[in-house]
Amino acid sequence: MPPLKQYLLTPGPTPVPERIALAMAQPIPHHRHAAFEAVFEEVRHGLGWVFQTKQDVLTYACSGTGTLESAMVNVLKRDDEIVYVNGGKFGERWGKIAEAYGIHAHEIKVPWGKAVEPVQIEEALKEHPKTAAVYVQASESSTGVAHPVKEIAAITRGRDTLCVVDAVSALGAMPLPMDEWGIDVLLAGSQKALMLPPGLAWVAASEKAWKKSEGANLPRFYFDWKQERDSQRKNQTAWTPAISIILGLAEVLRWLKAETLPKIYARHERLARASRAAMKALSLELFADRPVVSITTVKSPAGVDSEKLVKLLIEKYGVTLVGGQDSVKGKIFRIAHLGYFDDFDIVVAVAAIERGLADLGYKAKPFGTGVGAAMTTMAEFDATT
Amino acid sequence: MPPLKQYLLTPGPTPVPERIALAMAQPIPHHRHAAFEAVFEEVRHGLGWVFQTKQDVLTYACSGTGTLESAMVNVLKRDDEIVYVNGGKFGERWGKIAEAYGIHAHEIKVPWGKAVEPVQIEEALKEHPKTAAVYVQASESSTGVAHPVKEIAAITRGRDTLCVVDAVSALGAMPLPMDEWGIDVLLAGSQKALMLPPGLAWVAASEKAWKKSEGANLPRFYFDWKQERDSQRKNQTAWTPAISIILGLAEVLRWLKAETLPKIYARHERLARASRAAMKALSLELFADRPVVSITTVKSPAGVDSEKLVKLLIEKYGVTLVGGQDSVKGKIFRIAHLGYFDDFDIVVAVAAIERGLADLGYKAKPFGTGVGAAMTTMAEFDATT
Repeated sequence: MPPLKQYLLTPGPTPVPERIALAMAQPIPHHRHAAFEAVFEEVRHGLGWVFQTKQDVLTYACSGTGTLESAMVNVLKRDDEIVYVNGGKFGERWGKIAEAYGIHAHEIKVPWGKAVEPVQIEEALKEHPKTAAVYVQASESSTGVAHPVKEIAAITRGRDTLCVVDAVSALGAMPLPMDEWGIDVLLAGSQKALMLPPGLAWVAASEKAWKKSEGANLPRFYFDWKQERDSQRKNQTAWTPAISIILGLAEVLRWLKAETLPKIYARHERLARASRAAMKALSLELFADRPVVSITTVKSPAGVDSEKLVKLLIEKYGVTLVGGQDSVKGKIFRIAHLGYFDDFDIVVAVAAIERGLADLGYKAKPFGTGVGAAMTTMAEFDATT
Repeated sequence: MPPLKQYLLTPGPTPVPERIALAMAQPIPHHRHAAFEAVFEEVRHGLGWVFQTKQDVLTYACSGTGTLESAMVNVLKRDDEIVYVNGGKFGERWGKIAEAYGIHAHEIKVPWGKAVEPVQIEEALKEHPKTAAVYVQASESSTGVAHPVKEIAAITRGRDTLCVVDAVSALGAMPLPMDEWGIDVLLAGSQKALMLPPGLAWVAASEKAWKKSEGANLPRFYFDWKQERDSQRKNQTAWTPAISIILGLAEVLRWLKAETLPKIYARHERLARASRAAMKALSLELFADRPVVSITTVKSPAGVDSEKLVKLLIEKYGVTLVGGQDSVKGKIFRIAHLGYFDDFDIVVAVAAIERGLADLGYKAKPFGTGVGAAMTTMAEFDATT
């Protein structure tokens, strides 16, 4: 018998297309020679297009957390005050990074599953008028919530305060026009909508952020933006880049450009709607009050530990989903539709959930009810667009 | 006509074996699930074996420079003094990182192509007795010099001073028994003797370094060792790891273990001798006074700009070598024998050099003289071992 067929249906890492995996397996060029520079120039332009910015998009060899840190050390001064939104695992991380650097961080604590209200940002800035920057997630992966980034950027726009947006699980899934909305720092990572393995992360900064950066005095070296920008403008990186993943990125960006941004966003929206319809059809409750298009977060039904569900689905059916962390551990599970997912990935995820829940004693509806709802939603979406 | 066949014969990135490239192209597991943990546990043990240490070897998603920075921020206090050896591009970097963090760095400047003398370390420590750590390269890639790491570690051993060794282009090519020699911090990167694409870097620290780390107060987050060690002991990483490269690493470590360390070192030594014999046979002069086994650095003959040679070899023959940087730009070129190189890679490199030099007007000997000397040396090595 062959080993259990594996379905990686998680919001990061997301599935890597076979052709991209093979593009990354090709012999790599030396990063200080013309062949690499040509690829990197193409990649830089493509990233500017995804980020919807005229600014440089810097490519780092690191995980998304590295660029989160870079978004503090490159723009802040010692003793600066910041405001950050903590509505989940990643929001919490802003506070931890700030603590490591001795930054005065004012937390806006939001219950898991809820989005911050723009008025909370306004109030925080009224209370702390010297705030140098507001830090927020476009998509809080741990809860599946989309914070209202456009509205927050509109609030910071007229002030001497930056709007820093972690879009690791949002960029390339939903509209985040950096320049148009006035986002000052936008961060993303490779293992999400851009369909690559983890290992690359990106950051782009507005004129306003670069200007603030001139006065920044927190120590930094590997994550120093200026050094990196100087190199990357010559189609080089300051430090040895993750060459193989960059080869994959070049190919992914060609696909995405051909698809166009509106279609990319619609593709994500469509699968998000289908997933939600499926869960509702199974009488399951969604967890996020303002759900992000990349992840559907679902409350585990009464009596079912979502950790057990996730474990069962991996071990018995080869289907990898993710559960909840910290305070919602055992209480939620998450369906991803981010990057290289199609209709049948959602069909598989929903069918696996139907089967797994039944195995654990929850079967509100006949098998296929969730799958049918997902398919119906997809078909309706296709008929109206 | 097919495109020009490409030969990547550089000391980093080094050639990636086809089978490893395919191992990295396999579907990746989720990094928070058991399938990854099993691979990572194997990798952790394998790394301990290569590093020859009982300490944890921490895996980071970054380039080598990231771990260089980590080796300062994790062990130093504000206002600490350090001593560093600057004998090339990478030695110079210690000074730049120290400057970024406001560390008092005492430079031992060594001419490019020369190794530091142990007595220079002794004198520096006499002059600066409070030195918290000595920073040195085992292999200074920019010059092809091996600094006397064993002797330096013997000097720091009895003091309250750490010996920090950048072994990015040395680990897995030459003996560097960390615990036995008393090296306190040993750093390495994936794109060298371990035959992988760039994107991973490693660091291991001695008991003495961990102890010093307890008093360290430089700010750090992504590169915080403690956080990473706590996670990695659970076969996890603190931040999302570069999963695909770790899959390749597992396979590489299996090969290397089967080969055994003495044979790995002999393999490098053998190709180093062959390369040097070839250059001497062509009446070319070596640049390094204490050459490292991983790189042979050669002075360009009078009248030949090594930048032109390197450019010609890439463009006309598809052979990628590297030239010199900064003060030796145009004056040296480098032959790599690090990682996945065999006899015929050296044959190709030497033949390309013979041909390229002739194209540029230098032909001291008949074609094949260098290649013949390399082959003779290899055959003699085989006959005596």
